Amino acid sequence: SRSINLAVIPGDGIGQEVVAEGLKVLSAVLPQDVKLETREYDFGAKRYRATGETLTDADLDSLKQHDAILLGAIGDPSVPSGVLERGFLLKLRFAFDHHVNLRPSKLLPGVATPLAGEPEIDFVVVREGTEGPYTGNGGTIRKGTEHEVATEVSVNTAFGVERVVRDAFARAQARPRKKLTLVHKNNVLTFAGHLWTNVFNKVAEEFPEVTTDYIHVDAATIYLVTDPARFDVIVTDNLFGDIITDLAAAVSGGIGVAASGNINPSGEYPSMFEPVHGSAPDIAGQGKADPSATVLSVALLLRHLGYEAEAARIDEAVATDLAERTGKPARSTSEIGDALSVRVAG
Amino acid sequence: SRSINLAVIPGDGIGQEVVAEGLKVLSAVLPQDVKLETREYDFGAKRYRATGETLTDADLDSLKQHDAILLGAIGDPSVPSGVLERGFLLKLRFAFDHHVNLRPSKLLPGVATPLAGEPEIDFVVVREGTEGPYTGNGGTIRKGTEHEVATEVSVNTAFGVERVVRDAFARAQARPRKKLTLVHKNNVLTFAGHLWTNVFNKVAEEFPEVTTDYIHVDAATIYLVTDPARFDVIVTDNLFGDIITDLAAAVSGGIGVAASGNINPSGEYPSMFEPVHGSAPDIAGQGKADPSATVLSVALLLRHLGYEAEAARIDEAVATDLAERTGKPARSTSEIGDALSVRVAG
Ligand SMILES: CC(C)[C@H](C(=O)O)[C@@H](O)C(=O)O
Ligand SMILES: CC(C)[C@H](C(=O)O)[C@@H](O)C(=O)O
Repeated sequence: SRSINLAVIPGDGIGQEVVAEGLKVLSAVLPQDVKLETREYDFGAKRYRATGETLTDADLDSLKQHDAILLGAIGDPSVPSGVLERGFLLKLRFAFDHHVNLRPSKLLPGVATPLAGEPEIDFVVVREGTEGPYTGNGGTIRKGTEHEVATEVSVNTAFGVERVVRDAFARAQARPRKKLTLVHKNNVLTFAGHLWTNVFNKVAEEFPEVTTDYIHVDAATIYLVTDPARFDVIVTDNLFGDIITDLAAAVSGGIGVAASGNINPSGEYPSMFEPVHGSAPDIAGQGKADPSATVLSVALLLRHLGYEAEAARIDEAVATDLAERTGKPARSTSEIGDALSVRVAG
Repeated sequence: SRSINLAVIPGDGIGQEVVAEGLKVLSAVLPQDVKLETREYDFGAKRYRATGETLTDADLDSLKQHDAILLGAIGDPSVPSGVLERGFLLKLRFAFDHHVNLRPSKLLPGVATPLAGEPEIDFVVVREGTEGPYTGNGGTIRKGTEHEVATEVSVNTAFGVERVVRDAFARAQARPRKKLTLVHKNNVLTFAGHLWTNVFNKVAEEFPEVTTDYIHVDAATIYLVTDPARFDVIVTDNLFGDIITDLAAAVSGGIGVAASGNINPSGEYPSMFEPVHGSAPDIAGQGKADPSATVLSVALLLRHLGYEAEAARIDEAVATDLAERTGKPARSTSEIGDALSVRVAG
C-alpha cells in the first residue's frame, strides 16, 4: 500500500494557520489506501528565540527521512533580518539541493488582477535555487566605519546552470506552447550572463521543438505587466527569479494564490513546497489569511510525488472556489479550507 | 551672457530620431540670451564596427569639456551583447562618477497605464550608479567547459552608499510628502544589505522630517503594481534600480515617456541625460518613436543646469501634449517634436 511521510513546518505568523488548511485539504483528497504520516517541526522565530537554533545538523538528518516537506512561512519582526532567511530557509534549500524552484503563475477566471483588460496569464518560472547571489559568498571589511566595503558574490557554475536549464526545457517541451524564455542581464553581468546564455543555447539544440527567447530582467518586468501572455516557461537565476516571481504573483491574483516548490529532481533529498507569501505578522492569528496558496502548494507536492489526479482535483477545487467568490462575504482561513476539503473529496 | 555647451550623442536606432527632437525643443525653450553650443559625437554601433572603439581616453577628455551630455540610445543587434553597454554606457557612467541615477515616474492625466483603476503615481527613484553588481568585478574560469565557474561581485562602499543615500534624503526633504523608501534585499544579501540599511538609518537621523520605510526588492515589484501611490522617493542599488525603474516606467505610461539623469552632483564631471528606453532597432528609421522621453530628459538636464523655469515649461508641454492625444491619429516623431517646440516657445 502507498504512503506519504510528510514533514510539516508551519513556521511563523500566518504560516501556522495556512498549513493547517493545507493539511486538511491533503487529508480530504487522498484516497483511502494512501497512508499519510505527518511530523510537525517547530522551526522559526519561536524556536530561535528560545534556543538560538535555526536548523541543526540533527534537524537536517531528521527532515531527510521524509518524502516531502510542507512549509508555511518563516520570519518574524522580532528576529533580525536575514537570521531566519539565511539560517533556515536558504540553508534548507542549499542543504537539500533544491535547485529547481518552481513557481507557476496562472490568472484564474474571476480572480482580480491589478492589470487592466483581461490579460491571459499562464506561465511557469523555473528559478535556480542553489547558486547566483544567494550563496552567501562575500563579506565585509571595516564594518561600521566610513571605509566599510561589503561584497556579495554571485556564483554560477556550468553544472548548476545546465541542470536547471535542462529541467526548464523539459517542462517547456511538455507544455502545449513549448516556449522557453531565458531571463538574465547578460549585457551587464557579462561573466554570469555569458555562461547562462551559452549553456541555454547549447541545451536548446537538444530540444528542437522548443521555441526560445531571451529577455533582460529589467525588460521582463515590463512584459509582465504589458504582455504577460508572451510567457510560457521562464528560466532564470536565483535573484532574478525571486524578483520576477513576486511580480508574477502580483499580476496573476496576488500572493494569496501563489504556490511554489523547492525541488530536488533526483529525489536524493525531499523537496519542499511553500506558498510564495511570507508570515504576514500584521494579520497573523486573525483567521484572515487566504490558505489557497498553501493548498495549491500541496497540489504541487502531490504532483511531485506522482499523485497527478489528486493534484488536479485540488487545482480544480481552488479554481472553482476563487471563481465563486465575487460578491460573497469574506470567509475565514478555516472556512476556505473547509470549503476546499469538501470540493476535493466530492 | 549665459551659455550651454552640450555634448550630443544620438547613438543607435531611434536614438538618432529622438535626439533630433530633443534638440529642437531645447532650442525652442531657451531664452534668446542663452547661447547653445552643441557638438555631436558618433559613439555607438557604427563607430564600433568601423574602428573597434567604444569610448577612448581622448573621447572622455573631449566629453569632459561640456556642461552636460544628451544621449539618445546605444545598442544594436549587430554588436555582441555587453560590448557597448559595458564599453560605452557603463564606462561613461563610471568615468564621470554618475553616482546619482535619477528616474522620475509620474502618471500624467490621459496617459494609458497597464494598471486597472486610476492609480496615482508620482515618485522618483534614486538609483546608485557606480557600484553594486555593475562594477564588472568577477570573472570566469574554465570558460566553455562543463566545469566553468562565473562570478559577479557586487561591490558596495560606505562612501558610495552614503553619498547616494544623502542625495535621496535631500530630494525627499524637498518634496511635499517627504517620504523615502530604501529598496534592497537585506534578508538575503546580508553583507551589502547591512551596509545599506545601517547607512540609511544613520543618515536618516539628519533628516528628522523625512518619513522612512524599507522594502525588499521583490515586494517592491508587488507594490509598484498594487499600490504605487505609497512611493515618494526610493533609493536603491544599481541593479535593483535598473529593474524597478523599468517596471516603474511601464506602469506610469511606458518607456515612451520615461526620462533619466546620470548625475554627478559635485559638477566635477558633466552629467548625462537619456531616455530610459533603448535603441529599438525594430522601429528605427520609421519616424515612429515617441520623442517625449528624450524631451523630458532635456527638462531634467535644464533643471540640473539651473534652468528651472524652462524645465517646467517642457514638463508642462509634454503633459498637455499627452493629455490631448486620445482619439487623435498617431503622429510621427518629428511631428510630436514640432508640436512640443511650439508649446514651449508659446
Ligand atoms: C524569504 C526569502 C529568503 C525568499 C527568497 O528570497 O528566496 C523569499 O523571498 C522567496 O521568494 O521565497
Ligand atoms: C543598457 C544597460 C547597460 C542599462 C543599465 O542596465 O543600466 C539600461 O538598462 C538602463 O537602465 O539604463
